[in-house]
Amino acid sequence: MKLFSIEEITTLVSGEQIGHCKDIINAPAQIENAIKGNITFIGSSKYARLWENSNASLAIVYDGIKILPGEGKAFIKVKNADLAMAVLLEAFEPEPPYFETDIHPTAVIDKTAKLGKGCKIGANSYIGKDVVLGDHVTVYPNVSIFDDTTIGNETVIWSGTVIRERSKIGSHCIFHINVSIGADGFGYRPSNDGRGLVKIIHIGNVVIGNAVEIGANSCVDRGKFSSTILGDGCKIDNLVQIGHNCVLGRCCIMAGHSGLAGSVTLGDGVIIGGSASIKDHVTIHSGAKVGAGSGVISDVAAGTSVVGYPACNSREKMKQWVALRKLGRN
Amino acid sequence: MKLFSIEEITTLVSGEQIGHCKDIINAPAQIENAIKGNITFIGSSKYARLWENSNASLAIVYDGIKILPGEGKAFIKVKNADLAMAVLLEAFEPEPPYFETDIHPTAVIDKTAKLGKGCKIGANSYIGKDVVLGDHVTVYPNVSIFDDTTIGNETVIWSGTVIRERSKIGSHCIFHINVSIGADGFGYRPSNDGRGLVKIIHIGNVVIGNAVEIGANSCVDRGKFSSTILGDGCKIDNLVQIGHNCVLGRCCIMAGHSGLAGSVTLGDGVIIGGSASIKDHVTIHSGAKVGAGSGVISDVAAGTSVVGYPACNSREKMKQWVALRKLGRN
Amino acid sequence: MKLFSIEEITTLVSGEQIGHCKDIINAPAQIENAIKGNITFIGSSKYARLWENSNASLAIVYDGIKILPGEGKAFIKVKNADLAMAVLLEAFEPEPPYFETDIHPTAVIDKTAKLGKGCKIGANSYIGKDVVLGDHVTVYPNVSIFDDTTIGNETVIWSGTVIRERSKIGSHCIFHINVSIGADGFGYRPSNDGRGLVKIIHIGNVVIGNAVEIGANSCVDRGKFSSTILGDGCKIDNLVQIGHNCVLGRCCIMAGHSGLAGSVTLGDGVIIGGSASIKDHVTIHSGAKVGAGSGVISDVAAGTSVVGYPACNSREKMKQWVALRKLGRN
Repeated sequence: MKLFSIEEITTLVSGEQIGHCKDIINAPAQIENAIKGNITFIGSSKYARLWENSNASLAIVYDGIKILPGEGKAFIKVKNADLAMAVLLEAFEPEPPYFETDIHPTAVIDKTAKLGKGCKIGANSYIGKDVVLGDHVTVYPNVSIFDDTTIGNETVIWSGTVIRERSKIGSHCIFHINVSIGADGFGYRPSNDGRGLVKIIHIGNVVIGNAVEIGANSCVDRGKFSSTILGDGCKIDNLVQIGHNCVLGRCCIMAGHSGLAGSVTLGDGVIIGGSASIKDHVTIHSGAKVGAGSGVISDVAAGTSVVGYPACNSREKMKQWVALRKLGRN
Repeated sequence: MKLFSIEEITTLVSGEQIGHCKDIINAPAQIENAIKGNITFIGSSKYARLWENSNASLAIVYDGIKILPGEGKAFIKVKNADLAMAVLLEAFEPEPPYFETDIHPTAVIDKTAKLGKGCKIGANSYIGKDVVLGDHVTVYPNVSIFDDTTIGNETVIWSGTVIRERSKIGSHCIFHINVSIGADGFGYRPSNDGRGLVKIIHIGNVVIGNAVEIGANSCVDRGKFSSTILGDGCKIDNLVQIGHNCVLGRCCIMAGHSGLAGSVTLGDGVIIGGSASIKDHVTIHSGAKVGAGSGVISDVAAGTSVVGYPACNSREKMKQWVALRKLGRN
Repeated sequence: MKLFSIEEITTLVSGEQIGHCKDIINAPAQIENAIKGNITFIGSSKYARLWENSNASLAIVYDGIKILPGEGKAFIKVKNADLAMAVLLEAFEPEPPYFETDIHPTAVIDKTAKLGKGCKIGANSYIGKDVVLGDHVTVYPNVSIFDDTTIGNETVIWSGTVIRERSKIGSHCIFHINVSIGADGFGYRPSNDGRGLVKIIHIGNVVIGNAVEIGANSCVDRGKFSSTILGDGCKIDNLVQIGHNCVLGRCCIMAGHSGLAGSVTLGDGVIIGGSASIKDHVTIHSGAKVGAGSGVISDVAAGTSVVGYPACNSREKMKQWVALRKLGRN
């Protein structure tokens, strides 16, 4: 448990302390559940009403909100309560899970694999032939990493994740639980007798930039003969599907259950809402946003927003929904 | 294989035997595939027509259905055929997979972990520092359970499942294959230079009640600083996403591919249909139902049903669909 | 790396060589990224324009496209560029990941399990009691296969996959990463006091034919007391859900994120688009197609196409969408 004085926290969040309290602060907590020693957050007037009866010792409060510290409690006024919360979560971050030894004796590491300085490999993980890990890579237990894969410095791979052969992963990435990288793309051709399907062999790979995060149980398929590419800073939520030969620019966001069919291109900073699906070979240009639950079947211009199925301009779709609602009431 | 006489089965399901048959009953089977010695189920007249030619020795028949037992066959009349089937499936349930030894020698169990009486830990599983398992917990092979997690009595964890640090799991739970518990929530803030995204650290945890079942490849993310909570008796299907800081009441049902974004609240007994998605910070009050495939973007009142995208009252949505169908035919 | 002369490739794809080039061909590459020694593909005039400046030594070109080979480069005219590409990908397919020994010493294989000739079992995999593997079955590291399961010749099981007890898997199948086979179906009944849910025990199994491919993180649940069945040649993409007691005919295709609730029947050659969902007990007859993102709530006739939610005939739905678009503009 990490401990901070109120003065230390005031400095951390660059805020202004109001009221007096000598408690040592030990953890953040929700305003209604907080106990003595906890710090909480008041970003809107909805939460301000709960402050008087909260047992928290300290609150981070958005500048525009009018409250009094109360007896034996204090608060810190800040311009950006969300940013202050993020900074505090970093300060209170607990140690990651314990490794008894850096390289667990039950890990199976091929003798040709190269591990950088300070790597940690958990129990029962598998590291294949000619895999190259940078410095301070963390591989938790029960991970499988296949031949000729390279992984950059400081990347963290959680349990259950499998990375297939020839993947190229950047530095400072986080792959969460049960992630699947580099499985074959989904492609078939009719058999000669027309009665079945023949698998199209996928000999490409997956290339992932730096600072990419991939959520639990998400999948990125390998390219047919070139690469499926995720640019630096992409953030992918849980249960997301990225098909073969997709190319994502910098800092794209894909929310839970969203999916890209094969050969989809995303520009930089594209945001895909939860459960949205993009048809194969579609391009979504930089800065565009796809609403949750949408089905996109044609290209989306830079900086625009689309929603619905089939997806169209968000304003147009809103009008359609309003019109449909009226129609249903006639 | 478990064996029952027809008299034993009649007692089990509290039914009334019609016709005579001396066969020993060895397994349930579908009416068209059943062989001598099998028991089958007739819950509707659709299946009654198949009875005459079925080779089953015995049928459980809903009271209202008129059939004759036929030569050398018998049936048992019951008031509730579904309940009788459920009772029989329990009777015929085979032994679970075999453990050669309770604690497999290849399992890696931190020396600080505490295991209750009669726990079974499968091959190549990992149990981290200060994990506490209750009595008769079953952990199948290739599971990973991280530091400071507690798990209640009789809970069963299937292979491929990963439970991250500080999770609190109740008793009599079942976690199916490749479940992901406690991965980081999906939250970012803009970087100071406005050109990228900074991860918001998630230091909360996951708290799961008693008798909760979580389906294969489903995910429950940890809270930002408090907990993501699933109440007693919740039943979660496969490939479901439950985001950070969601709170589910008692006995909620979420069908396959459904998802809750961050900070969604479900009351007690809420039912979420397959592939439905709920927007962040939405509350769905007790007893409400969300239809399959819906996208819910605002709160849902207790006991009501919503459907569609954007979801609205089911009756209203039906009228919209009818109106749209007419419009398409003009 | 595999190497071919241009003459060898011309023979492989049954094409006609145009132009002269003595380079040895070492890999396929996209036309804009290709380097000397690479082969590329020109299936449309869009790519033909890039040929002049491409550094590829060789191209496979669809017969109808008019281009010149250019200095020191050659191309091969073919009638079916997609088929030629598929043939070449097979030719260039690299060796699969390396096994240091056929049966890794850390694999845990029950002494009652029977392995055919030439099986490979990766590090830390688990093979349960009375499992029977055919000849040349490949099981990569960190797989779990439970009691009484049988798997046919040449089937490949990738890491993270779990196959529950009593499954019957055909030959020449591929199960990709983190696949879940045979978890319990999702079924409950009200408890006697009406306040909770009682699990319906699922004692059936999963039966999968030959040449079936199942994508990463997909799930096939076991039947209630009979089997969930996938016919020969079915191809299932990533993150797909197949509920208990579903029966799929031959060569069905299910794209990413699609799902079948319980007891759905698919005929032969049914195609389910990405993110489409099918209600329980629905039958989709042979040759029918379900569009991406659809929600199917009633039976679909053989050879027809449906789309939308609720799904209806594709032409009718298109008219509805056009009508709605007009309505939104009024």
